[in-house]
Amino acid sequence: ACSRPLPFLFTRRRLHQPYNSLTESDVQIFSEILGHNPSLLLQASDPIVHAASTDWTGHYWQAPARLLLRPQTTAQISALLAHCHQRRLPVVPQGGKTGLVGGSVPTVAHEEIILQLQYLNQITALDPVLGIVTCQAGVVLENLQDYCANHSWLVPLDLGAKGTCQIGGNLATNAEGPYFRKYGCLAGNVLGLEVVLADGRILDYNYRLSNNMKDNTGYKWHQLFLGSEGTLGIITGVTLACAPLPRSKQAAFVACSSYDQVLLVLQKAKQYLGEILAAMEFMDAAIWKLVEASGRHQMPLSVETILSESAVQEGGPFFLLIDTHGSNANHDQEKWQTFLEAVQDDILNGVLAQDIKQYQSFWQIRESANPTVAQLGYTYKYDVSLPIAQFQDWIQEMRLERLGPLARNESSSLVNANWGHILDGNLHFNVTTIGKREVQKDVLDALEPYLFHSILKRGGSISAEHGLGQAKNHLLPSVHDEHTLDLMRSLKALLDPRMILNPGKFLPAK
Amino acid sequence: ACSRPLPFLFTRRRLHQPYNSLTESDVQIFSEILGHNPSLLLQASDPIVHAASTDWTGHYWQAPARLLLRPQTTAQISALLAHCHQRRLPVVPQGGKTGLVGGSVPTVAHEEIILQLQYLNQITALDPVLGIVTCQAGVVLENLQDYCANHSWLVPLDLGAKGTCQIGGNLATNAEGPYFRKYGCLAGNVLGLEVVLADGRILDYNYRLSNNMKDNTGYKWHQLFLGSEGTLGIITGVTLACAPLPRSKQAAFVACSSYDQVLLVLQKAKQYLGEILAAMEFMDAAIWKLVEASGRHQMPLSVETILSESAVQEGGPFFLLIDTHGSNANHDQEKWQTFLEAVQDDILNGVLAQDIKQYQSFWQIRESANPTVAQLGYTYKYDVSLPIAQFQDWIQEMRLERLGPLARNESSSLVNANWGHILDGNLHFNVTTIGKREVQKDVLDALEPYLFHSILKRGGSISAEHGLGQAKNHLLPSVHDEHTLDLMRSLKALLDPRMILNPGKFLPAK
Ligand SMILES: Cc1cc2nc3c(=O)[nH]c(=O)nc-3n(C[C@H](O)[C@H](O)[C@H](O)COP(=O)(O)OP(=O)(O)OC[C@H]3O[C@@H](n4cnc5c(N)ncnc54)[C@H](O)[C@@H]3O)c2cc1C
Ligand SMILES: Cc1cc2nc3c(=O)[nH]c(=O)nc-3n(C[C@H](O)[C@H](O)[C@H](O)COP(=O)(O)OP(=O)(O)OC[C@H]3O[C@@H](n4cnc5c(N)ncnc54)[C@H](O)[C@@H]3O)c2cc1C
Repeated sequence: ACSRPLPFLFTRRRLHQPYNSLTESDVQIFSEILGHNPSLLLQASDPIVHAASTDWTGHYWQAPARLLLRPQTTAQISALLAHCHQRRLPVVPQGGKTGLVGGSVPTVAHEEIILQLQYLNQITALDPVLGIVTCQAGVVLENLQDYCANHSWLVPLDLGAKGTCQIGGNLATNAEGPYFRKYGCLAGNVLGLEVVLADGRILDYNYRLSNNMKDNTGYKWHQLFLGSEGTLGIITGVTLACAPLPRSKQAAFVACSSYDQVLLVLQKAKQYLGEILAAMEFMDAAIWKLVEASGRHQMPLSVETILSESAVQEGGPFFLLIDTHGSNANHDQEKWQTFLEAVQDDILNGVLAQDIKQYQSFWQIRESANPTVAQLGYTYKYDVSLPIAQFQDWIQEMRLERLGPLARNESSSLVNANWGHILDGNLHFNVTTIGKREVQKDVLDALEPYLFHSILKRGGSISAEHGLGQAKNHLLPSVHDEHTLDLMRSLKALLDPRMILNPGKFLPAK
Repeated sequence: ACSRPLPFLFTRRRLHQPYNSLTESDVQIFSEILGHNPSLLLQASDPIVHAASTDWTGHYWQAPARLLLRPQTTAQISALLAHCHQRRLPVVPQGGKTGLVGGSVPTVAHEEIILQLQYLNQITALDPVLGIVTCQAGVVLENLQDYCANHSWLVPLDLGAKGTCQIGGNLATNAEGPYFRKYGCLAGNVLGLEVVLADGRILDYNYRLSNNMKDNTGYKWHQLFLGSEGTLGIITGVTLACAPLPRSKQAAFVACSSYDQVLLVLQKAKQYLGEILAAMEFMDAAIWKLVEASGRHQMPLSVETILSESAVQEGGPFFLLIDTHGSNANHDQEKWQTFLEAVQDDILNGVLAQDIKQYQSFWQIRESANPTVAQLGYTYKYDVSLPIAQFQDWIQEMRLERLGPLARNESSSLVNANWGHILDGNLHFNVTTIGKREVQKDVLDALEPYLFHSILKRGGSISAEHGLGQAKNHLLPSVHDEHTLDLMRSLKALLDPRMILNPGKFLPAK
């Protein structure tokens, strides 16, 4: 019995004082690792650090981080983490900061060092036969898309934040977006990964040496890092399979008077557009009107006109952006024609983009949904999966049961506007309090936790693509059973035993 | 210091005597778990056990296993494993036994109990809107394909062994096959998994409750089990995303005189067939002649005729099976026409399947490659990834440097016949010693380890899709670095700390 008490005490001490505070000597060591380059190590007083301490939503802000590091190489990241690990200093990895669940910024409790990936921005190889691209994690998604497009390849991922988000951030959040069904998810397209573990070890899975489409040698551990939101390791590089660049792109907006019609159009789009159907995006009347009101877009259809001409279901008219990617423009146009004929009785109106410029402007309308509501006020954002047939029914449930009473009190400063990747059963449900910048307890209480429970009751997912961060991590125990939670904790303990990587995010506090 | 020596000794004892031997009392307990149903528990004397103790290749045979268990439910598997774990009894999971690397049968050293999955054969749900199918692991792949096809959905996996292999075995080997590029890999299409861990815990990742296309709640631990060959857990159920069933299928065989022409045709197929290109399979003259000689197939082209009419490169003529899946037969036929016009100077001859029967017979020719060589004699099989441009160059290297001298000694009983999924850079290289049933040391020495080193030197993979099993696990250290091997060992230790699951496979012995 002589040695028993020791480990027990040790464990208790750890639990109470898990992290150390940053000292001057730590800063010196970091500075040395970064070659004493002042632009790579910034302190709290720097406005850049201020900006880096809150995220795209502006919902998560405590105080400027004490330190921001901007390594330029994987080796530097390895050395920085080895020191943080040894000293028990917490770190938050930061990509483009467009994540919507507060994953990329410091939390109250932990005083994290921000580690930015933006200088790891090299595209290192592109295999012309297989379309396999290798690049570093800090490459901005749109830059990667442009580079690959110049070589006739399509990055199999696209999202509204493409101009700012980084491929490393996309991997860390397992981002999905509108083309999920056509080009597959990251899990299927990521062939290799380079990761720095919490203790500084550099792991390489088919990153540096290999660009093979198929390889079955060993456990696919790299998959664990997809969607792990910086809690298991820092992603520093990726090998990604691209798709051939489509030679013909077409898109249309159609308006439907009822949600049943939306479902019919969806069904017929799959049938008549077949293999060229690339994306199908849903927007309800509320988000359409807000985007229209922003005055920044040439809208192909008008809610007012539709309402003056037709009777529509509550929440309608409903808009669908339908997008096709193909290799033969004639064939694609013929498919469109048969499709549009087949749905003519199911839609109120429809506009086919006349050229690639209008095609792009249609997408800009859809992509402006997020920024539009964000500008108007504090937005309660919910990214859920739901059986497709239930979208509108569930939205109505939320409106009647939860928002209805509230909205009257708030004298209508509250708007519920919704959109989403309907092809995948993925809905973005948004409540904005116009003109208000802070979270309001009564609105929050009206929404949560009711919303999550009603999603789970319908067999949906409480986070379809945005992840958990610090916004939804407390919900994990209502999603998964104890065995799965245990396994998740074990994986965390295995890869980051001192819990220095992104504390307070993803996994719920015990 | 009083407690130190104990764990040390304990560790040593474990290393020397890792497993216990099966006792009568173990058998009693298993029998109880299986409800005393004699057809679910078979002993060494049973001919079924004899057959189950060797695999499809026949290369791996020691002695009949002492025990074969055939559980009918996940709960039974959980109870069986909990006992094996507690008693430290090793287990080998067995699906359809079509794996090609000896993963599914007992090894010399360990006296494994065989655990067959075939009675977990229920298809439990198919979502008609999203095409998400849920089934148990023991469902035979072809049965799953037929069931889904009856509901207009396509299982995104196909392979020659479909009539025998099980979806659980496919997941455990991360099987890929010809449609990898068109429909994506399992990592992308598996949405949920049920797994029984070594200690009997049942893990559920979006299997029972959920059928959402997108879900980002937690670590994607289920991905670890894909390709883990039964060494991390027993897969008992899966939720899989299907693709819409193609309404139009077309295929052609074309013959090329040189490998450069093969590359040209491949390039043009991508360009002209575009999004309908589903598969492209390579067969060299040797395998074509063997399939022809088997007399079981109506061959659309003849090597003899080609050789009598044209000069071809050594190893040629080369054959390509090109397959398209689309939604509009007219469009597909037009694409085929422009494609065939574009390649008319690059091919010697080509035959377009006239109907679905001929389409199927073309595929039967390709799929008979494996069984044909297996029947002729002992086959040394190598499933590699390689830069596509290098296929024939590498085959020639192997023939000249390694097989040439040998073949003369063996008075030509040795045939090298090759085929593969060329679209993915995946080649199956096969050496058969006609009429011989046993491995021959001189042939093996000529091939290995040279072959693996030359593949790695060219940046290829030594196991593209068949995995490691007991055939290639010793090579893992030449593929991955020490950090990755360490992580793989840690994952194994985390999930199967007593190493009862499929010992001697996948990971190399330390
Ligand atoms: C307008 C807009 C539209 C969007 N549309 C979509 C959409 O369609 N589909 C979708 O899935 N998401 C969408 N998102 C959210 C999505 O999560 C992010 O846009 C993106 O994937 C995050 O990338 P980022 O580089 O900005 O990461 P950040 O926000 O900087 O970080 C996100 C998380 O990943 C971690 N992280 C970042 N980089 C690394 C790294 N290299 N290694 C380890 N961890 C890292 C961070 O710590 C954090 O936890 C949208 C966001 C916006 C603002
Ligand atoms: C004619 C032929 C053609 C083939 N073509 C291809 C091809 O195109 N592409 C390709 O990738 N492969 C191909 N293969 C090999 C391929 O690995 C197998 O056909 C198939 O995936 C194995 O499934 P099975 O059910 O037969 O598994 P088995 O052979 O029974 O087992 C394979 C491995 O998985 C483990 N295992 C099986 N079931 C489970 C389970 N439920 N849980 C945990 N572990 C389990 C076993 O222990 C073993 O290690 C082919 C094989 C043949 C004979």
